[in-house]
Amino acid sequence: MATAMSSNYVTCRRLIRFVRTVKQPTSTRNYSSNVDPSKIRVQNSEVKGFVERCMQSVGAKVSHGTQLAEVLVAADYRGHFSHGLNRLEMYVNDLKSNTTMSDKEPGVICEKAATAHVDGRNLLGPVVGNFAMQLAIQKAKESGVGMVTAKGSNHYGIAGWYSMQASDIGMLGMSFTNTSPLQVPTRGKKPVLGTNPITLAAPGRDGDSFVLDMATSGVAVGKVEICDVQKTKIPLGWGVDSEGKETTDPKDVLNGGALLSLGGLEITSGYKGYGLAMLVEIFCGILAGADYGPNIRYWKDNDRAANLGQCFIAIDPEAFAPGFQDRMQDMMKICRMTEPVDPSKQVLVAGDPERIHMAMCDDTGGIPYHPNLIEIMSKLAKDVSVPPMKTVQ
Amino acid sequence: MATAMSSNYVTCRRLIRFVRTVKQPTSTRNYSSNVDPSKIRVQNSEVKGFVERCMQSVGAKVSHGTQLAEVLVAADYRGHFSHGLNRLEMYVNDLKSNTTMSDKEPGVICEKAATAHVDGRNLLGPVVGNFAMQLAIQKAKESGVGMVTAKGSNHYGIAGWYSMQASDIGMLGMSFTNTSPLQVPTRGKKPVLGTNPITLAAPGRDGDSFVLDMATSGVAVGKVEICDVQKTKIPLGWGVDSEGKETTDPKDVLNGGALLSLGGLEITSGYKGYGLAMLVEIFCGILAGADYGPNIRYWKDNDRAANLGQCFIAIDPEAFAPGFQDRMQDMMKICRMTEPVDPSKQVLVAGDPERIHMAMCDDTGGIPYHPNLIEIMSKLAKDVSVPPMKTVQ
Repeated sequence: MATAMSSNYVTCRRLIRFVRTVKQPTSTRNYSSNVDPSKIRVQNSEVKGFVERCMQSVGAKVSHGTQLAEVLVAADYRGHFSHGLNRLEMYVNDLKSNTTMSDKEPGVICEKAATAHVDGRNLLGPVVGNFAMQLAIQKAKESGVGMVTAKGSNHYGIAGWYSMQASDIGMLGMSFTNTSPLQVPTRGKKPVLGTNPITLAAPGRDGDSFVLDMATSGVAVGKVEICDVQKTKIPLGWGVDSEGKETTDPKDVLNGGALLSLGGLEITSGYKGYGLAMLVEIFCGILAGADYGPNIRYWKDNDRAANLGQCFIAIDPEAFAPGFQDRMQDMMKICRMTEPVDPSKQVLVAGDPERIHMAMCDDTGGIPYHPNLIEIMSKLAKDVSVPPMKTVQ
Repeated sequence: MATAMSSNYVTCRRLIRFVRTVKQPTSTRNYSSNVDPSKIRVQNSEVKGFVERCMQSVGAKVSHGTQLAEVLVAADYRGHFSHGLNRLEMYVNDLKSNTTMSDKEPGVICEKAATAHVDGRNLLGPVVGNFAMQLAIQKAKESGVGMVTAKGSNHYGIAGWYSMQASDIGMLGMSFTNTSPLQVPTRGKKPVLGTNPITLAAPGRDGDSFVLDMATSGVAVGKVEICDVQKTKIPLGWGVDSEGKETTDPKDVLNGGALLSLGGLEITSGYKGYGLAMLVEIFCGILAGADYGPNIRYWKDNDRAANLGQCFIAIDPEAFAPGFQDRMQDMMKICRMTEPVDPSKQVLVAGDPERIHMAMCDDTGGIPYHPNLIEIMSKLAKDVSVPPMKTVQ
């Protein structure tokens, strides 16, 4: 397991070299404009150590704390700040209140040549996710494809963390998780599904890869919150008010409203995004026998175990036509070289924005955090009696 | 094979009973308003017989003609007229010009416990698709999941035809196909991907089911053509002009423009739809070693074999948590019973619009076709010297 996880870091380093050495679209090279001097930088290893200290202080096994730390660092390093350090307090509180446990390891309930069903035993999401994904990879090595479901799981961080474990070793990886209800079904007033993400990671040549990691809602709720703070309107297609009517006011969405599915309203095919959110729920809560749909506890409630359902798939391209990685690299090249509408915004493939962010972190000495988050983390350090994070001077 | 295919008809009949007997949302009962008196009705069996006659007259093996006929009838019966009889001429011409063949059967190139790679030998798409889907189902029975790719295939009709072969026997089914380039990548000027559909069919109780069958573009090109004929604007988010700029004029899209991905422009997360179209291409052209992306021949060109790539997945829910169908039915009930924004438009689940259409066909004595299509089919009958379709009097 440790090998698979540290190999994600190896890939990150490879990808950065790729960003620096391979002919890249303009917008993946000119990332310097994204560097915000008001941010406070922290080295990846320091973020990881801090998460480990916090989690151990509230009773996490060393290996469980490390597994959570690695996925949270990966989220921030890749630029998905909504799924990184800013969620640490939730994981700490869940463990402190025994809503999440760290006393066991996940177990296999039943298995066949290419499948397994796992009991997550209410352990930390990444502990369950890593166990299940590694099992899917083993199955794929033997049978060509492996599919593993898990019940009794918790928030597992960025979905792409698991799919990349497969692409790091030349396989295709997928993962899915259900989440707390936030997305209205097309035509409906109230949310019955979560933001239910889908991820696929597929290896190209020389460390390059395709990494799709997307919520099936149009946007994550964090994007609406940012507009609210900045007092800007949201585009039509992002969310609805408490009566299910489309709105451009972020407050309508945040105060009793909900997110729209990818595609927006019915006229712009929002029913497809709703269908995809159902697909994720079918692979997770329904197939795994976990909580599902509106029965999932509300976001950040910790009155009961989350009992999330998750699904992990690994596919060995060697079981199909030879030459997968060459064709994959060629297809990505075709996309990246497509003439752009705006010459300053070149066409990217899924995973490119994250590569740009990682290169920027490396070049500027660490992950850039908002000063408010650093302050919150300092307070958390005091609360759980561990040394705070050292920032880059 | 024949059993699996005729069982789709059994399911259709079951679904109609479901529509009639189970408490349904208002909009799935009041389908009578959709009945258009200007349409000409033809019984399913008559449509099937006509397709068989036409295909045999240009050299199709009896079983190949039947397999094509069944999927074309299913498309029209389910209300997907863009994929039914109106494509018959294309299949006839492809076979007549030897661009598609009917002299062999598909073959397995390599296989593992849960996977297989199939050579479609340039046979009719449904012949390749049925062969590959049935193989995926066999693999799933033994190993829990089965995944089969096919190269050397052709247009296979509605993607849902294959996924429903799995749901008809209590499994989950998926299928994917790449298609001719029509979809621009986010930020790009020119199309590099097709409308690349995804389908998932999952069984509920008593013949009820979830059947997602969606293009990863916002809409199919047929919807734009209808707006053009009716001289109405298209909504923003459907397509772009030849410079990649979003447009509301259907002519811009049809004359050198292209379709946008599900989600529309970048601001409304169109890159997610683009990512999903890539996912389909990765599972099809890239994994199967078929033509891919912009290398696929243009739509309806028949100067060379299409060499499409396709992918078929079957998942046995018995390999995971017990009680799948009960939870599936409950989740569909939750969605259908969600309070609607507009009381006259109840919340549906994927597959409901098709159920409504099938019930309407049954109640009105046949599938309703536009008189123009009936005329074109009469001309085709003359061209290939077979008796024309009998219409319902």
